[in-house]
Amino acid sequence: MNYEILNTIKSPQDVKKLSNSQITVLCEEIRDCIINTVSQNGGHLAANLGSVELTVAVHRAFDSPQDAIIFDVGHQCYTHKLLTGRFEDFKNLRKEDGLSGFMKPKESEHDPIITGHSSNSISAAYGIYRAKKLKGEEGSAVAIIGDGALTGGMAYEALNHAGDHKGNFIVILNDNEMSISQNVGGMSKSLTKMRNKTRYHRFKFAFGRFLNHIPLVGHALYKFFYRLKEIFKSIVYKNNIFSAFGFNYLGPVDGHNVKDMESLFKIAKCYQRPTVIHVVTTKGKGYSFAEQSPNSYHGVSPFDATIGVLPSNKITFSDIAGRTLCEMAENDDKICAVTAAMESGTGLSDFAAKYPDRFFDVGIAEQHAVTFTAGLAKGGMKPYFAVYSSFLQRAYDQIIHDCAIGNVPLTLLVDRAGIVGEDGETHQGLFDVSFLTSIPNITVYSPTYYDELVYAINLTALQGGVNAIRYPRGCEVPSNTFKIDFKGDYTVLNGNGDRVVITYGKLFSEALKAKEADESITLIKLNKIFPISDALVLGLKNCKKIDFYEESVKSGGIGEHLSALLLENGFKGEFIIHAVNNEFVPMAKTDAALKKLGLDYESMLRS
Amino acid sequence: MNYEILNTIKSPQDVKKLSNSQITVLCEEIRDCIINTVSQNGGHLAANLGSVELTVAVHRAFDSPQDAIIFDVGHQCYTHKLLTGRFEDFKNLRKEDGLSGFMKPKESEHDPIITGHSSNSISAAYGIYRAKKLKGEEGSAVAIIGDGALTGGMAYEALNHAGDHKGNFIVILNDNEMSISQNVGGMSKSLTKMRNKTRYHRFKFAFGRFLNHIPLVGHALYKFFYRLKEIFKSIVYKNNIFSAFGFNYLGPVDGHNVKDMESLFKIAKCYQRPTVIHVVTTKGKGYSFAEQSPNSYHGVSPFDATIGVLPSNKITFSDIAGRTLCEMAENDDKICAVTAAMESGTGLSDFAAKYPDRFFDVGIAEQHAVTFTAGLAKGGMKPYFAVYSSFLQRAYDQIIHDCAIGNVPLTLLVDRAGIVGEDGETHQGLFDVSFLTSIPNITVYSPTYYDELVYAINLTALQGGVNAIRYPRGCEVPSNTFKIDFKGDYTVLNGNGDRVVITYGKLFSEALKAKEADESITLIKLNKIFPISDALVLGLKNCKKIDFYEESVKSGGIGEHLSALLLENGFKGEFIIHAVNNEFVPMAKTDAALKKLGLDYESMLRS
Repeated sequence: MNYEILNTIKSPQDVKKLSNSQITVLCEEIRDCIINTVSQNGGHLAANLGSVELTVAVHRAFDSPQDAIIFDVGHQCYTHKLLTGRFEDFKNLRKEDGLSGFMKPKESEHDPIITGHSSNSISAAYGIYRAKKLKGEEGSAVAIIGDGALTGGMAYEALNHAGDHKGNFIVILNDNEMSISQNVGGMSKSLTKMRNKTRYHRFKFAFGRFLNHIPLVGHALYKFFYRLKEIFKSIVYKNNIFSAFGFNYLGPVDGHNVKDMESLFKIAKCYQRPTVIHVVTTKGKGYSFAEQSPNSYHGVSPFDATIGVLPSNKITFSDIAGRTLCEMAENDDKICAVTAAMESGTGLSDFAAKYPDRFFDVGIAEQHAVTFTAGLAKGGMKPYFAVYSSFLQRAYDQIIHDCAIGNVPLTLLVDRAGIVGEDGETHQGLFDVSFLTSIPNITVYSPTYYDELVYAINLTALQGGVNAIRYPRGCEVPSNTFKIDFKGDYTVLNGNGDRVVITYGKLFSEALKAKEADESITLIKLNKIFPISDALVLGLKNCKKIDFYEESVKSGGIGEHLSALLLENGFKGEFIIHAVNNEFVPMAKTDAALKKLGLDYESMLRS
Repeated sequence: MNYEILNTIKSPQDVKKLSNSQITVLCEEIRDCIINTVSQNGGHLAANLGSVELTVAVHRAFDSPQDAIIFDVGHQCYTHKLLTGRFEDFKNLRKEDGLSGFMKPKESEHDPIITGHSSNSISAAYGIYRAKKLKGEEGSAVAIIGDGALTGGMAYEALNHAGDHKGNFIVILNDNEMSISQNVGGMSKSLTKMRNKTRYHRFKFAFGRFLNHIPLVGHALYKFFYRLKEIFKSIVYKNNIFSAFGFNYLGPVDGHNVKDMESLFKIAKCYQRPTVIHVVTTKGKGYSFAEQSPNSYHGVSPFDATIGVLPSNKITFSDIAGRTLCEMAENDDKICAVTAAMESGTGLSDFAAKYPDRFFDVGIAEQHAVTFTAGLAKGGMKPYFAVYSSFLQRAYDQIIHDCAIGNVPLTLLVDRAGIVGEDGETHQGLFDVSFLTSIPNITVYSPTYYDELVYAINLTALQGGVNAIRYPRGCEVPSNTFKIDFKGDYTVLNGNGDRVVITYGKLFSEALKAKEADESITLIKLNKIFPISDALVLGLKNCKKIDFYEESVKSGGIGEHLSALLLENGFKGEFIIHAVNNEFVPMAKTDAALKKLGLDYESMLRS
């Protein structure tokens, strides 16, 4: 792609040299580049379109990497990549070995940390900031966080800590009035009030006194800022949530006006107090389809940019989960559904529309979600918390402390379990098997088929206790050759050879292909994957050769649990676990990743 | 113990019948009973003494169990236990099979959930509240949360969610100006301001209009409240942190005046909005030693009530950890120490005094603590986060996402790893081995001896990567008979028999006793417990009988990891794991608990 200005930007220093009119062109080019690339490669669109000017202003006002700049979650870091020497590689965004869709230190010195999960940017930036000050280094640290991420408790832990200390630590609130879907919670209403406040303090009063304290440059700066007073109407508010934590508050400022933001950021740099700058942006800005329907353009698969994203007809595991809950809710008024800002992603939109009283979107707040779900159960409801596997990592303690110790009857619907593809390391659902099965009193299912998912969801409503049902991203792979019974703890498809293959979840479809190619294999599918059935262990005890496949980290996975049980029962054969062994799995298409990990059916045949 | 009033209280209904003077006597008796019992059994003292009147007022204004009442953490639930039919059993507080020191549904219908970890009460109470409303039940839910617990992000997730919905959900803020140690963070300063505000709104204005909307009883209520107007100076503030989340705010009110609180709680019950009542209490109230030095009376071992708690001369693992960090910090100005509100508990008081710039108490905020620690490391420091094992569960995702994926060089000092004794289920450090070793790129040590802990702490400063060093509560058990070399990955003490015993950490001291009694045992001590050394696996491959002991859940523990490796390497012998198998371990003295679990040296000899 050939862009007049963008092609010339090799580092943030180049951004600083541009004239006003060049900035306007640059922003247009960035938008064009993002729309083109994301429409081809898939990725996060609306948030990135909303933060183009914000990012340009950040790189004009701050000096990366001397100032450490962290984009929370990373849904808004594409412009940052384009301005920090990665324009050439941008065409390979989210491709195997290409640019990550999130911040990644291995890519660039301008990415201080890995991002992907929400609400951690202030913590990381503040740590870097304090280290800089201890080492006597120049520069600050800047966390850029969306209003959605402000529903995550970790952000408040960091605000509370950072607000207590003098120094030029900076948080930019990118307020687009929604995060992934419409934002929820009391805070959201508060921000709306702050956003709409009409009684602006005059700029000159807010900063005049302050600037006069700066010797020499003070007056010049004063004049410079004074000139801007009519342009940007940013103000210092007292008595808001940020000041409660000890932060200085500047804003709100128009997040699509580079000059206004740049000025305000430069002012913020002068404070010897932690400062929040409230920037108001429009998600999807500059691409009419995305502006009108930002939810549909949050994370997208490749699409035709001229006509926009078309609704998908593809049914997924998430859809089946949501549909099943709807059906159950119709006959049982105790069924509730909880989501942590993933209504659409977890297939709950219909449930939310049909049963608004029993649907709870708690924000990006997995810790609260789990304990709130436990509270619903304690109050007599039958709640299901639908959540992506990698985000459920946030609630490990709550599953132990608030659910399992008390054996509270509820079900975790663990979506995106296993390899997730292009989102890469931070989003792989590879830990849930280990962390869930470390917890006493928990029962874990891992359906391969839609019918099996429906069965498991219904079953857990009846049986009580803490349940988790984990299922993959995407669609089932139905079998044409076998009719699989999934109602017992496990299912055996006998072969006449010595080799036994055991697996569960999505990988069973791979194993079935292997079985079709080599009928001698005895294939065992685990339906309830934990606790492991005694009968299974006894049945395997005298086997000669067992290959265990799982789409999970090996460490603490079902294969290891089974190893221990087999040894305890005097097993003398060969038992090999094929799983993800002590590594993080980078982005790649799911099939390619499985092949590389030796978890596809061809690897199974070769083994 | 014979108390005039307390002996007659069989349920909260009895509390409601008391006259003013009887209430005064009751509160005195409760204090006496708590001081007597805690001085004999150990337990949480200062917070419980501070919340006597608060709890009496709660049980007069609300109707437990119809109103679900949850004390956050449970450091302040002793009075609640005494008022809800558990006075007779109170003498067995924190004894095996006796009353738990925390809320416990199995004990009483007045304990809606298990407590122990901080900041989850609002989430649980709000879940119960919404369930009640869905079922059309009477009653509300009340979360009683300390200002310390307000440093935990989960509380904000819950405030944000609950603040968005109309209805009579109630949060009582028990503000004692400190939590476990002096409270930290910007929020703490904010609360101080709110506490000290002198411009009280007149009571009648605040509630007059509201009460007139209640038909019939309205006027009577109005008169009742009006009479109180001169007594309590509670007010409705706008524009504070709670109103930012959508909560109605009442207070502050004197937390040692039962009548004032009772009135305010009854007013709060009438709102159809979520309401926070700000109660100001004195930690340690009524016991002069504890009032003067509340930190020393937070959690105590048995002591002489007439002379107070004496400083302990006993050196613990925590002390050694703190001392080691101090020594390192003297020579290396990159050494930093982070704690989540456990400065004293993790042995960091000296470090905090000597190196205040490099010491960070972030509040009860383990999530932030881990990511902030990672930020310090990214900024070039060598940070150590000292934290109790069971609280580190809160930061599982941050260890994966913010530390391990990027292989950020830092060390987690995992204190209270293993059985912790009388704090029971919620505080056992039995999961860290499993959840830490599920994470790629992590190295885990489990020292048995002080020298070994010193060695490991020094080692991790040099070697980079994500490290965890786990060590038990209390003191080492030095060996008189063996000189143990702990510098390799593992240490072998050969015997001439077929039996191999493998273990690590505190249990090695037990195993050593077994070895002393039966020299034929070959005893292997793991020093670095994860990743497991290849040499160890090869060395064990041809063994006939191996017993593996670990003070951890079996599921995902080192024993299971080793099982898998042995099987992969063709092991044909017997391998038995002795660990905590799919159960939560209730309170008991540590030795008794280990015996019950079959992890003491006698069990090892018998096996």
